[in-house]
Amino acid sequence: MSDDARSERAARPGGRTARTRAAVLDAVLGELEEAGYGGLTMERVAERSGVHLATLYRRWRNAEGLIVDVLGEIGTREVPIPDTGSLKDDLRALASEIAGLYARPRYRALVEGMVAAAVRSPAAAAALSEVFAGRNRLAGRIVERAAERGELPPGTDAAAVIAAVGAPFYYRLLIQRGQVDDALAATAAAAAHAAALSGAFTPPAVQDP
Amino acid sequence: MSDDARSERAARPGGRTARTRAAVLDAVLGELEEAGYGGLTMERVAERSGVHLATLYRRWRNAEGLIVDVLGEIGTREVPIPDTGSLKDDLRALASEIAGLYARPRYRALVEGMVAAAVRSPAAAAALSEVFAGRNRLAGRIVERAAERGELPPGTDAAAVIAAVGAPFYYRLLIQRGQVDDALAATAAAAAHAAALSGAFTPPAVQDP
Repeated sequence: MSDDARSERAARPGGRTARTRAAVLDAVLGELEEAGYGGLTMERVAERSGVHLATLYRRWRNAEGLIVDVLGEIGTREVPIPDTGSLKDDLRALASEIAGLYARPRYRALVEGMVAAAVRSPAAAAALSEVFAGRNRLAGRIVERAAERGELPPGTDAAAVIAAVGAPFYYRLLIQRGQVDDALAATAAAAAHAAALSGAFTPPAVQDP
Repeated sequence: MSDDARSERAARPGGRTARTRAAVLDAVLGELEEAGYGGLTMERVAERSGVHLATLYRRWRNAEGLIVDVLGEIGTREVPIPDTGSLKDDLRALASEIAGLYARPRYRALVEGMVAAAVRSPAAAAALSEVFAGRNRLAGRIVERAAERGELPPGTDAAAVIAAVGAPFYYRLLIQRGQVDDALAATAAAAAHAAALSGAFTPPAVQDP
């Protein structure tokens, strides 16, 4: 980026650059919803967003670059972390949020797109793992609060509990190729809760000191 | 397929057609291991297998077609289903088998390839979900035997328990982009076991009759 471009962005955070990016990322999600990752092309994103094709190629290079930027943008969005006072209810609420997200075709297509992009592009793979690590750290507060309340075995790995809530959704979407629904959310939350209480997410060194 | 080709295959199940297929599928796994799904081309598979490019295009059409056939072939392989006499140990043995498989670069690359292929090809998606459904049904015997021994709540969904053992591996590989290891196997097995005992995989209608 040139110094001019940098100062323009810094000076106008909600300005033309930000509006262009917002239009492009929205177009990416729209294209994913309609045509899937297999149909995601720079040409269609240009047409849908009204942004020049040359600008797209300069700033995002290719479809993987677009996916990386969508992931980065989503990674900075604030999401509510449930805080009901009970681990069981918090995990259930978290699972319902995930189910609600992936019941929407554009987010299902985004998951497929980001995983397919990660297979082809190390940058996309790094963005994907970073976004999920960040999300799981944030949601880990649910588990830390439960530990502070004495609901969990000492040393429970908070990120592992949160990953256990999420994993069944990606298995359903990517491997079983089925729909996510509230029954899956109920099972995922109940299974993660029971496993956490049993000490399954407590590292062996803590289990057997 | 012409009638001639059909009768040739039927007449010589271990003959030239079968040898060609075995050479091609082995070359696909080798290419996946070396170059990943992003580098899987008909040209490289032809070179590696020694099978004519025209034959590859005629029988498999494209890279997705190759992945579908590898999946189908793997789906018919016999795999040992643990039977130790204890659900806990059976699930642990199953998880170790999965971990051992995906510690091998060619099978990790196959998972990535099949998921990426499924995003682009409905035939690959159908093959993927069928192979896993078949595998999970077979491994479900572990859960059915445990139920017969009275180790589990009545009505436990056998396929859901097996899916719970597998899901963390695909989450680690595809989303977290990390290595699978025996620590993950231990956690996945222990979590699925605790969740099954708690009734998390018992349908609500059975839980609350």
